Amino acid sequence: MLGLMHAARTNGGEEVVTVTVAEGVHRYTYGECAARCRKLASALERWGMQQGDRIATLAWNGYRHLELWYGVAGAGAVVHTINPRLFKEQIVYIANHAEDRLIFADLSFVALLEDVWPELTSVEAVVFLCDEAHMPKTKLPKVMCYETLLAGGSDDYVWPMFDERTAAGLCYTSGTTGHPKGVLYTHRSSVLHAYAAALPDAFDACARDIMLPVVPMFHANAWGMPHVAPLVGAKLVMPGPYLDGKSLQKLIVDEGVTLTAGVPTVWLGLLAHLQATGTNLGGLRLAVIGGAAAPVSMIETFERDYGVRVAHAWGMTEMNPLGTVNGPTRATAQLTGEARWAMEAKQGRAIFGIEMKITDDDGRELARDGKVSGHLLVRGPWVVERYYKAAQPAVDADGWFDTGDIATLDTQGYMQITDRAKDIIKSGGEWISSIDLENAAVAHPKVAEAAVIALPHPKWTERPLLVVVPASGQNPSKDEILSFLETQVAKWWLPDDIAFVDEIPHTATGKIQKVALRERFKDYKLPTV
Amino acid sequence: MLGLMHAARTNGGEEVVTVTVAEGVHRYTYGECAARCRKLASALERWGMQQGDRIATLAWNGYRHLELWYGVAGAGAVVHTINPRLFKEQIVYIANHAEDRLIFADLSFVALLEDVWPELTSVEAVVFLCDEAHMPKTKLPKVMCYETLLAGGSDDYVWPMFDERTAAGLCYTSGTTGHPKGVLYTHRSSVLHAYAAALPDAFDACARDIMLPVVPMFHANAWGMPHVAPLVGAKLVMPGPYLDGKSLQKLIVDEGVTLTAGVPTVWLGLLAHLQATGTNLGGLRLAVIGGAAAPVSMIETFERDYGVRVAHAWGMTEMNPLGTVNGPTRATAQLTGEARWAMEAKQGRAIFGIEMKITDDDGRELARDGKVSGHLLVRGPWVVERYYKAAQPAVDADGWFDTGDIATLDTQGYMQITDRAKDIIKSGGEWISSIDLENAAVAHPKVAEAAVIALPHPKWTERPLLVVVPASGQNPSKDEILSFLETQVAKWWLPDDIAFVDEIPHTATGKIQKVALRERFKDYKLPTV
Repeated sequence: MLGLMHAARTNGGEEVVTVTVAEGVHRYTYGECAARCRKLASALERWGMQQGDRIATLAWNGYRHLELWYGVAGAGAVVHTINPRLFKEQIVYIANHAEDRLIFADLSFVALLEDVWPELTSVEAVVFLCDEAHMPKTKLPKVMCYETLLAGGSDDYVWPMFDERTAAGLCYTSGTTGHPKGVLYTHRSSVLHAYAAALPDAFDACARDIMLPVVPMFHANAWGMPHVAPLVGAKLVMPGPYLDGKSLQKLIVDEGVTLTAGVPTVWLGLLAHLQATGTNLGGLRLAVIGGAAAPVSMIETFERDYGVRVAHAWGMTEMNPLGTVNGPTRATAQLTGEARWAMEAKQGRAIFGIEMKITDDDGRELARDGKVSGHLLVRGPWVVERYYKAAQPAVDADGWFDTGDIATLDTQGYMQITDRAKDIIKSGGEWISSIDLENAAVAHPKVAEAAVIALPHPKWTERPLLVVVPASGQNPSKDEILSFLETQVAKWWLPDDIAFVDEIPHTATGKIQKVALRERFKDYKLPTV
Repeated sequence: MLGLMHAARTNGGEEVVTVTVAEGVHRYTYGECAARCRKLASALERWGMQQGDRIATLAWNGYRHLELWYGVAGAGAVVHTINPRLFKEQIVYIANHAEDRLIFADLSFVALLEDVWPELTSVEAVVFLCDEAHMPKTKLPKVMCYETLLAGGSDDYVWPMFDERTAAGLCYTSGTTGHPKGVLYTHRSSVLHAYAAALPDAFDACARDIMLPVVPMFHANAWGMPHVAPLVGAKLVMPGPYLDGKSLQKLIVDEGVTLTAGVPTVWLGLLAHLQATGTNLGGLRLAVIGGAAAPVSMIETFERDYGVRVAHAWGMTEMNPLGTVNGPTRATAQLTGEARWAMEAKQGRAIFGIEMKITDDDGRELARDGKVSGHLLVRGPWVVERYYKAAQPAVDADGWFDTGDIATLDTQGYMQITDRAKDIIKSGGEWISSIDLENAAVAHPKVAEAAVIALPHPKWTERPLLVVVPASGQNPSKDEILSFLETQVAKWWLPDDIAFVDEIPHTATGKIQKVALRERFKDYKLPTV
């Protein structure tokens, strides 16, 4: 609650603007928001919510979702943000595993809820985030209207006091293997994370900013933006479900957005719209990009054509989620041309509170020279200690969490992801980055998508197989791709073979399913030279 | 340790520059600093320092003082910064009350130490912050050389782990009455305070900054700057004892300082030097001013003549020390002219983590309208809970600490100090601000200094007496000052009488000793109208 109460007290007249699913653009102040959070907490208490209960959301970024974050957590219960883009079986699994008592849902998710409802074991009702006039027709057996529920709360609710290590939020990772795993966020970890995220070298967020979290609140807490904005008293703009280029451009200009954050896919859509229409980004000054590596061309386009600085960021659901943000030091601020873009392509420097190190397979710490890559381990007050309901800790005896990423660290503290540990190709004692090979391959004009997997090799232990989806109407040969790659990577990195496929399988969140690819190619024989 | 280790890991090549007392300008990197801190901690452990021991400093801002902060606190002991400007009896009292085991001292303080030594009951030795070549001749019985002590430490020292609520620092307030009171700072409170101080709306400190703490480390932790600089990885410039305008101007330009902080007196000296010499402040962008209210004319001069933004700040030794920093919101950023200076004259908005409220004499919360003034109460993770060794808590049952200040709060969250609670004049149920009256009086060209105290009054309870030190060679009449004041303040605020004196008594830290004034004028009879 600390952040929202701070905003209400010190900048209570500042706005929260939401593009709602069905009710147009909604505006109110932090003062009104805080009052409604109290009312919501009171209403939920009257309904029977206890401290520690899990209350789920299936919702876009919007003011009612914000009220749930602060109202539920402020009352000592846990907001469980469910990612509606997960597969149905995953949603069922995590709602049951979390033992959610209520699901608060946007109108977009009626069909999804009807689909999963019969398999939910703990949910007592669905509360739709709308007023009575917009309540959907549904065959769901137990539904409530958010505004009606809220109206039953008291204005005089007093926030309870509890330990700062009380759970406030819950989010499940959607790994590529096994069941999703839950990560509990405490009030303590969220406040510390928000402090670090707001710093000048990270989001650089201040009371004069107008912040637009494009990254959804169900995607790793919208990278903390709904905590950071009230902390600094910034105006907050919530895009609802409208994440297409046209909607975002209009919202950014209309509301005077200065600071935003999202995944590369969203920005591709936005840049395409800008280029097609000749429109601009108004007073936007900083776009934080994470979730996946942003192509250098995207960073260049934002900065050169639209005057918007791009800050590459990296984090994980297990880290609340931020670990690094890319910003210049005194030394790197001097870089120009290729050296500058190479620096900006890195995932950035640890925000204060996070420690990072890289190790070899035996856990020995490796040099911070920007060249050697190793397993990336992190430690800090907002790093997961134990997955929800897990028997074993997620960290080693010294508190280090293995991110599963392979990375380099340089002398200025910049980290760059070079691969996922399980995807790297271990060839003759050296490592080949599947990501670097894939990036090199997709730069070929006849390649639409590429994936690299390791296949066993009698002499080298493993060697890379390149799997390629040809560009539409193209029929590239192995030789022309290999010749192209020879100009891009070290010779010993060249894939031993190339397999052409119509499609590469993806997870619900758009990542390549290498597990499925490995299964498909498990009997594939690499040619022997 | 967290901040310094973060700097050493992520920006280890960044510099710490010190103007030393006797050894010229010293430069090294955060990496070297961290290595020497380990060595110091090891040496102190070998000497016999235990966790929780108090280790005192009598030192200017410099790299060895910085090593003591991190080396002693990192080892689990407590750095007690003694203000050398205190009266001898106060220094004796606090060193004995704290049971300091060692005093680390700059060469400037040999005579002071010789003077107090016979009365110190717990100090086992004095360690001079220099190398063997610079060791002073002294009659002190037990002295050590810092560099020799350090050389006896191990490079392999491993920092111990302990609870974050372990004490790290100790500073005594120099109140105007009674003995000084000690405030213990924990690692937790210092880290949280540094996060908040570094935010864009406060110091706005980033990795590209070059920070100069002019405010001494013995004056309320140099407002956290030696914690903030390593936290963000900024270059740190330490002025040693050289706080005159000429030295500061040269240091600011030579080292490229971007961010500094100090009390108004220091800036008066700097501005006088700039005006006399036609020099400038190079790339300085922000000067934080606190400790006492900065005159609007000073804020205007900095901004208009030298392009340096001034941020008024307010805090207390009891608050580690920051409570507020003045920075613009979206609304106040639009202000111009008088309205802008009026905003900048306020002490600023609460940094995140600090709650503020104003109350009447009965503890009822008052309106945040920018007009009503009341007792200023604060609460937060870096607000004192109990003075060192005190039997009673320093806060009420809800954690609120009464600052002793009288202030207003406005709708945008800006706080303005209007008086000290014990100095306000309670006239007919209304309050008259002694500070406002004093400021009005010193604006008269024939007035050098002014102090206002309350005298008892049969009808109005209290009425103001204005005590004036005439400007050199001037002999103002009561009437001409009263006529002038009539144009400045409400008629019922006009002092009932004016007393002319040669001198107004001050405390060791330069504050007016109103207690002494009240004693002197306790039998003074106000004229009856």
